[in-house]
Order: sequence, then structure tokens, then C-alpha cells
Amino acid sequence: MHFDFRGEMKNILIKFQYDGENFFGMSKQPDKRTVAGELEKVLTEFLGEDISITASGRTDRGVSAVNQYANFFTNSDFEMSKLPFAINRILADDLKVLEAREVAEDFSARFSAKRKIYEYVIYVSDHILPLNEKNMVRIYKDLDISLMQEARKFIIGEHDFIAFSTKGSNPKTTVRTVNDIEIIKEGNIIRFRVDGNGFLYNMVRIIVGVLVDIGLGKKDENNIKRALENLDRNELGEVMPAKGLKLIDVFY
Amino acid sequence: MHFDFRGEMKNILIKFQYDGENFFGMSKQPDKRTVAGELEKVLTEFLGEDISITASGRTDRGVSAVNQYANFFTNSDFEMSKLPFAINRILADDLKVLEAREVAEDFSARFSAKRKIYEYVIYVSDHILPLNEKNMVRIYKDLDISLMQEARKFIIGEHDFIAFSTKGSNPKTTVRTVNDIEIIKEGNIIRFRVDGNGFLYNMVRIIVGVLVDIGLGKKDENNIKRALENLDRNELGEVMPAKGLKLIDVFY
Repeated sequence: MHFDFRGEMKNILIKFQYDGENFFGMSKQPDKRTVAGELEKVLTEFLGEDISITASGRTDRGVSAVNQYANFFTNSDFEMSKLPFAINRILADDLKVLEAREVAEDFSARFSAKRKIYEYVIYVSDHILPLNEKNMVRIYKDLDISLMQEARKFIIGEHDFIAFSTKGSNPKTTVRTVNDIEIIKEGNIIRFRVDGNGFLYNMVRIIVGVLVDIGLGKKDENNIKRALENLDRNELGEVMPAKGLKLIDVFY
Repeated sequence: MHFDFRGEMKNILIKFQYDGENFFGMSKQPDKRTVAGELEKVLTEFLGEDISITASGRTDRGVSAVNQYANFFTNSDFEMSKLPFAINRILADDLKVLEAREVAEDFSARFSAKRKIYEYVIYVSDHILPLNEKNMVRIYKDLDISLMQEARKFIIGEHDFIAFSTKGSNPKTTVRTVNDIEIIKEGNIIRFRVDGNGFLYNMVRIIVGVLVDIGLGKKDENNIKRALENLDRNELGEVMPAKGLKLIDVFY
């Protein structure tokens, strides 16, 4: 039997970091190692009651997070500022809790999120560079940064981004606002920082994919314009691999 | 039977990169996966003759290299500029050859080396940060950068560095010149770049160890002065873990 004690429970927000390489994504799945699965297992064990977390959103298999957030309800009197030290001893080294604190009863890590920043990192090289392989994706040919800098302007703003998504979720609306896309080149590494009020399934990886194609001269800004006008996924390139993507932060 | 054909052979210099995590160091060892062992196996297989390489120097188990160098002698007529593409298909992703070219007969990747740069990277955090764990070592407490910046000046220069070494090799001389030590802080990451004409066994890891102890207030510049004057290893701290160390480049 299950009683709804939520009214008397504390609502706890945790901030955590993970390297996505060895997880089957953020969302819980039976018999697979997931970020939510590991967190719920360890929290349930430590707090001595069934814990169910709500994350800011899912990240796919192979995607990492510098600062990811989730909330959960608990009856525990444990001093939550000490929770990271307590449960990080049990968690593996690819998932660690950085902070924990009590928040208002109506706070939701998912629905209270106002803004998210993702980063996608590629490196340009003829050869695989062993020390660049972690959390980066290799592109063989050099990219024209100025073409990408021009083209990104057509993505920024409020649009129906359905063409920049893969089917697999059913959001109420496919309108999103991209606040900014920064493209930063440091030697042979190129970082794409995408800042928005929310993202559809695979949206960041499709944004980076079309920008890379534009940097290679295989597409141009007209593909972006037509994709947004005609809601046509075929104007855009492939979904970039998960490995290069990191959730940087969520703002509430 | 073995004939010395060296006089008619080509001397080939290769530049290569490796992530040290899954190697038992640079130097060949029977029955263990080493960088030299993998390279010799693949070169021998590809060129169809026994290849023996001479590297610029050894790196220990767990140490990585951005640009490492070795030379070898061969009778092969294969166009060496294409060697990286040919053998990188056979090599695993944690070891790749970046360049290959013919050099003078008397060139030695070991004895012709004039200068080397190593980098040691730490990050400062209460908790393990999963995305900072690769090729970095965690320090729990913040370091006083200005104390380290002052102290490094006493290491720079020509000294008998025997106190900054671990027994295990028998160099002709223990006098070395440290040209520069750069200490660069970027957020919670601190990079130590050590530039010298050569390094004794564990020398970079002992240099960083004493600087970290100074940054923590556990030692001061007098420990460095006494170590160099009295050739006393006991004045210095521990050898820092291999994981944080990378050979950046060798200059000929």
C-alpha cells in the first residue's frame, strides 16, 4: 500500500555531474545502467525509503552533463547539505552529486526549468587524436568558422523547431526559443554553445549537424531558412553523435 | 643470423600520440601492453621486417603524450608520409601515429632531443568531478597560486636535481636545466607546464608535488632551496600520480 505523504515531505533538489559514456542515458530503464536508475538506487539505500527522482530532462545514451538537476520527495531528517559526501562514497566515479538542498514544495526540476545551455565539442584532424577522443567528435576536414557564424543567426530566435527534431517524444508544442549559439575555436577544437528555453528531442545535435555541413560547404543558410519555413527535416543534415554533447547547466 | 644493414637503411622519425591509461608505460615489456611494444608489433607487421624503435625517452605507466617521438631503421621503400594512414588502421584508438618522415642517418629521437615540455593538470574540488577525471588529478583544497608562482623561481635554472628524482635509472649526470615553469589557472583547473633540457626519473611529478604542498601551505621555498643545496629528497613531497602527466612536445 502507498500513502501520499507528499504534503508532509521535504522537496530536495540535487545537482549532479556524469560522464555519459557508460550509461544507457539519463532515464530509468529496467536492467540497464542509467543515471536515474543509479541515483534512485543509492538514494533509496541511503535514505531508507523509496526515492523517485524527477530530472530537468532526459539526456540520451552517451550524452554527459556538467550540471544536471533533479528533485525528489523524502521524509528523511538527514541534513541534506551533507548528502553529496554521504552518497558519493557509494556512487561510481562517473556520477557524482555536487549539491543537495531543500526547495519549495511546488518546485519541479523539470517544469520549473527556464533555460538550458548545451555544449557540443568537435575536433578537426586527419587522424584520431587519442587525447581528444573523450567527449569530443572528430571531423576530418577544416570548417569555415565565418560561414557557421553567419548561419547561426538564422537559428537564433523563437521558431517552430519541429524540423530540428527526431520523433520519439510528444511535446505539447514544438515552438522553442534559441537565445544564443556561440561558436568558439581553440586550436583544432571547436565548441558550439547552444542556449535556449528548452530543446526538442535531438535538437542540439541537429543544430550542430547543419552548422558543420555549412562549415564544410555542403549546405548553406537557405537550408536553415527552408527547414524553419516548411518544417522540413530533410533540409538538415544528420544527428551528430551523442559523444560530443554535454548539458552544461539548467537555470531556474 | 642478423646483419647490420644500417648503413643502407633509411632512418625514419615518427611522431605519435597516446593516452597512457591502458598502457604499462612507454618502454617495451614482455607480456604487457606498452606503447613501444604496440608500435613495434604494428610496424613489423606492416613493413615486413623486424622493427626496433628508439623513443625520445620513456614515460611511466599511466602517463600520456600529446607529441612523442621515436626513430627506427628500415629497408622498406614504402612512402613514409603515408605511413600514419596505413598503420593507424591497425592501431587501437589510444595510440595513433601523426607523422612519419626520413631523417639523417645519425639522428636519434633520444640523443638528439634538446628540450622537452611536460604538462601536469590538477583540478580543485570537494567532490570527484566525473568530467574532470580524465588525465587530471584532484586536489581537495584550493591552492594559493601566488605562493606557487613565487616558489617556482627557485626551481628554474641549472641545478643538480638528484633530490627531485626517484632511483631507478642511472643517468651520467643529474644536472638538468629547467627553462621555465608556467602555472595557469582556468576556473578550478590548474596546469603546470614544465620546460627543460631533460628530466630525471619522476622529476616533473616531484616538482609539481612540492609546488602543490607550497600552494597548500605545507611547505615553502626553503624546502626547495635546501633540497637543491643539500641534494636531499626528504625536503620534498610525494611523487604526484601518473594520471595528471602528459609529455607535450620534444624539440630537436
